[in-house]
Amino acid sequence: MAALAVSLGDPAGIGPELLCEAWVRRKQEKLPPFFAVGGAKVLAKAAARRGLDVPIEPIDGVAAAAEYFPGALPVLGGLDGDYTPGQPDPDGARLALASLTEAVRQAVFHEAAGLVTGPVSKALLAEVGFAHPGQTEFVAEACRVDPEEAVMMLAGPQLKSVPLTVHCALSAVPGLLSAELICRKALVVDAALREDFGIAHPRIAIAALNPHAGEGGRMGDEERRIIIPAIEKLREAGIDASGPYPADALFAPHARSQYDVALAMYHDQALIPLKALDFDQGVNMTLGLPIVRTSPDHGTAFAIAGTCKAHPGATIAAVRMAGAAAVMRARA
Amino acid sequence: MAALAVSLGDPAGIGPELLCEAWVRRKQEKLPPFFAVGGAKVLAKAAARRGLDVPIEPIDGVAAAAEYFPGALPVLGGLDGDYTPGQPDPDGARLALASLTEAVRQAVFHEAAGLVTGPVSKALLAEVGFAHPGQTEFVAEACRVDPEEAVMMLAGPQLKSVPLTVHCALSAVPGLLSAELICRKALVVDAALREDFGIAHPRIAIAALNPHAGEGGRMGDEERRIIIPAIEKLREAGIDASGPYPADALFAPHARSQYDVALAMYHDQALIPLKALDFDQGVNMTLGLPIVRTSPDHGTAFAIAGTCKAHPGATIAAVRMAGAAAVMRARA
Repeated sequence: MAALAVSLGDPAGIGPELLCEAWVRRKQEKLPPFFAVGGAKVLAKAAARRGLDVPIEPIDGVAAAAEYFPGALPVLGGLDGDYTPGQPDPDGARLALASLTEAVRQAVFHEAAGLVTGPVSKALLAEVGFAHPGQTEFVAEACRVDPEEAVMMLAGPQLKSVPLTVHCALSAVPGLLSAELICRKALVVDAALREDFGIAHPRIAIAALNPHAGEGGRMGDEERRIIIPAIEKLREAGIDASGPYPADALFAPHARSQYDVALAMYHDQALIPLKALDFDQGVNMTLGLPIVRTSPDHGTAFAIAGTCKAHPGATIAAVRMAGAAAVMRARA
Repeated sequence: MAALAVSLGDPAGIGPELLCEAWVRRKQEKLPPFFAVGGAKVLAKAAARRGLDVPIEPIDGVAAAAEYFPGALPVLGGLDGDYTPGQPDPDGARLALASLTEAVRQAVFHEAAGLVTGPVSKALLAEVGFAHPGQTEFVAEACRVDPEEAVMMLAGPQLKSVPLTVHCALSAVPGLLSAELICRKALVVDAALREDFGIAHPRIAIAALNPHAGEGGRMGDEERRIIIPAIEKLREAGIDASGPYPADALFAPHARSQYDVALAMYHDQALIPLKALDFDQGVNMTLGLPIVRTSPDHGTAFAIAGTCKAHPGATIAAVRMAGAAAVMRARA
């Protein structure tokens, strides 16, 4: 397969060092080939600081990446600069944005097999003119997909979960829920599990909003008004959706074995169990795009950048998941 | 120490069989002595169905329980009846209520070292005239404690968590939160961790309500308006309270090692991580009472009663935790 394009993330964060660490572990972790978009100097310094031996191989196009990958970390293009770990600045944010933009381009035009994005600082990106709420919306727009149709899924070794509402106050969640929203996102999730994970009949478990799933309406009526009608519609459409399940029971070990993905009503409902169970291996995958896109589910962690403390598990998992999805799509 | 009083729970549920299972494992699990309140026939049949050898020893008072415990399961009083697992009825609910009432009495008058309550059906109890929302409120009232001052803590081997609001719709949560509520419950929790767990300086981690702890007010302002002022007041009072922490990060493995108990803003925020991590060993402990009270954190599970499928882990953990707390209190 062609190599995956990986954007640097903020050069003062933990993205570059973890990319080096992933490359070093490429054999033991059986990782698919990938290349960094820019940052040859940033990566060389990050590797040195972590005590890693990472030869850098500049490449002019995606085609060469897979060939060089076994012996060196391929780096596409000349984007670069000098940055100090833990000391982010607007220049670094500009480099992160340029790397992201070019990495997306490589994936959209199908030269790269897929896209893995490094962690960025949204606040710093906003300062340098980035007008999107996050990388997901940027990638969706570059793919000409309505960001509403791009669905964030969090995936770890023990759980895949999708929050139906994401970055909003908890008090706003009940008002944002609708049967239409649940159905629309569930359809995207169903298609993605078939196409990217090869699951022939995805089992989608849908969480309740209220404790004890509302206990027959005694503690909230969103289950009866919104979630149950949505599940009925999905089942009529042939989707294996079930629920609503009390959220505290849904993520227990024996419950997790009964579904392929959990649809949660809000951010923390999806992310609390994922991070409690699989903190160092969480992957953020964007479903519903024409390209494969994953990201390690952590931030720039400026506070520990350059200290060798950052765990590469999520970066490795993000690369592996993107590669596996790309293979599934190529077979289809 | 004196023995713990254990109420039967609904005789058609899994409570009686798990009590027998706990008694059988008393040595390997190093359990403190306990006795059942009523249900000699119910327990004998439950043991037989599970293939357990459980001699029953009727006792007239608590004093005899510890003496008989090594060789038989002591049963106090004549409350009893004939019930079929999985087929609850009002008579069974009456037996459950009578057993609970007497078990509470034994603990309140300090004849028993503490109280472990078996699982009941709230709906069935309500049908036979039980006017309390749950056993916790009943026990609090019997102890002449304002139910508002009785704090539910969920505890497993990997996590202790306290929901500040409990059985209400999610949409009602933001309106129920106040700095006063947080401070009041945190003080009860702090005292209980000292007295019942022997933790000299309890570290209390307080969850945010909104994703990313509100991200500086961009996604909800309850952190700034309510939670941060509460934490400041608690710290002024000498309590080691910290936060508000984004809830998805708070329950990750490395975060859990930094505190003794997490205060969550709502039911599922506290229970999702507990059940994801420790499903079969969760204990519900009521803090702020003059007596020790624990309960296995599961329901009657009528659907699997009598089938040998129910896991005794939570009952064993509830007995062990009550015994340890009783020892701590006796030493004080």
